[in-house]
Amino acid sequence: MAEALSDSALDQVFRTARSYNGWLDRDVSDEQIRAIYELMKMGPTSANQQPARIVWCKSGKAKQRLAQHAGEKNRHKILTAPVCAIVAMDLEFHEQLPWLFPHTDARSWFAGEDKLAARESQAFRNSTLQGAYLMLAARALGLDCGPMSGFDTAKVNESFFAGTPYQANFISTVGHGDPASIFDRLPRLDFDEANQIL
Amino acid sequence: MAEALSDSALDQVFRTARSYNGWLDRDVSDEQIRAIYELMKMGPTSANQQPARIVWCKSGKAKQRLAQHAGEKNRHKILTAPVCAIVAMDLEFHEQLPWLFPHTDARSWFAGEDKLAARESQAFRNSTLQGAYLMLAARALGLDCGPMSGFDTAKVNESFFAGTPYQANFISTVGHGDPASIFDRLPRLDFDEANQIL
Repeated sequence: MAEALSDSALDQVFRTARSYNGWLDRDVSDEQIRAIYELMKMGPTSANQQPARIVWCKSGKAKQRLAQHAGEKNRHKILTAPVCAIVAMDLEFHEQLPWLFPHTDARSWFAGEDKLAARESQAFRNSTLQGAYLMLAARALGLDCGPMSGFDTAKVNESFFAGTPYQANFISTVGHGDPASIFDRLPRLDFDEANQIL
Repeated sequence: MAEALSDSALDQVFRTARSYNGWLDRDVSDEQIRAIYELMKMGPTSANQQPARIVWCKSGKAKQRLAQHAGEKNRHKILTAPVCAIVAMDLEFHEQLPWLFPHTDARSWFAGEDKLAARESQAFRNSTLQGAYLMLAARALGLDCGPMSGFDTAKVNESFFAGTPYQANFISTVGHGDPASIFDRLPRLDFDEANQIL
C-alpha cells in the first residue's frame, strides 16, 4: 500500500515550489526535457487522448520567435529562461485514438466537422491536464517552472503551427529558478472557501 | 539546489500510478481530503485565480445524487468509490482577485458581461490545472484517482450548483485503488510524436 511521500518531496513538488520570474545560469539539457516528458506522458487523459503537443524553445532564435508575441513582462522571462515550453493541443487528436484507445471505436466520437466544438473542449481540458503534469514533473526532477498565458495565441499559432491542427494553450519557462526573482507568496483560498464535503 | 525525487516517489506519482475502476474497502477521511487540498492549492494558476471549487461526494446520498447523472459505467465507479470529487469552476473568480492578486486591479480584466467568454476560458484552463494538481496530490499522499468526464454537466450543475456561478468541469473518484479493477496500461505517444526541441 502506498504511503505519503516524504515532507521534503511534498515541499519540492507543491509547498515550497514557486513560479519563477528569473533563472540561475544553469542549462536544461535535452535529456532533462525528455525526462520531463517521460513522466508527464503517464498522467491520465480522457479516453487516453494525449492531445498535448509540446514545442520546447531552447535556442535563442526559438525563444526570440516566441517572445515577440508575448506581453512585455513575459517577453523578458522567455528570453532569459533556459527553455520555454509551448504546450499546444492537437485538434485532430481523434486520429490517434484507434491505437491509443483500441478497444472501442473512440475515433467516431470525435470525427467530423460537427464534432469540432467537442474536440476543442476535450483538447483544451486534456492538454491543460498534461501541462499541469509537465510542470509537476519538472519540479519532481528538481527543476522549476514559470507558466504564462499572456501572449498572442493567434500569432504564436501562425508562427509555430501554420498548416497543422495544433493550437497553443499556454507556455511555461523551465529552468533552475533564481530565488531573488520572486516576491512573497500570494494568498490561497482556505479549505472552507473552496470545498464542501457532502 | 533541488534534486530529482527518488524513483519510488516518481513511480508513485507518475510511472506506476493508474486510473482505477474499483476500490479497496478503505475509507478516505475528511483529514485526507483536507490534506489533498492543502497540497493542491499551492499549484500555480493565472494571476492566482484559483477558480476551482470542489464538492467531495462522500456520503451514499451525495454519491447517488452525482451518479444518476453519469453514464452507466461511470455510475458504478462513483457509487463504489470512497469519495468522488466534483471539480467545478467559479465563473466569478474575478471577485476574489482584489485579495488574491492585490498588487494590481486584476478584477477589472474580467469584470462585466462582455468578459464572460474570457472568464469561461480562464476558469476552464485554471480549474483544470487545479484538478490535475488534485489528482497528483492524492497520489503523492498514497491515494489513487479515477478521473471521468462522462456525465451530464447541465444536470450536475442544476443539482449541485443551482443559483451559483459554479459549473462542473470534471469529476474524479479518490480512494485506495483495487489492482484487480484495471487492465493493461494503454500506450503513450513517444517523445518524437508529441515534442519538438527548437
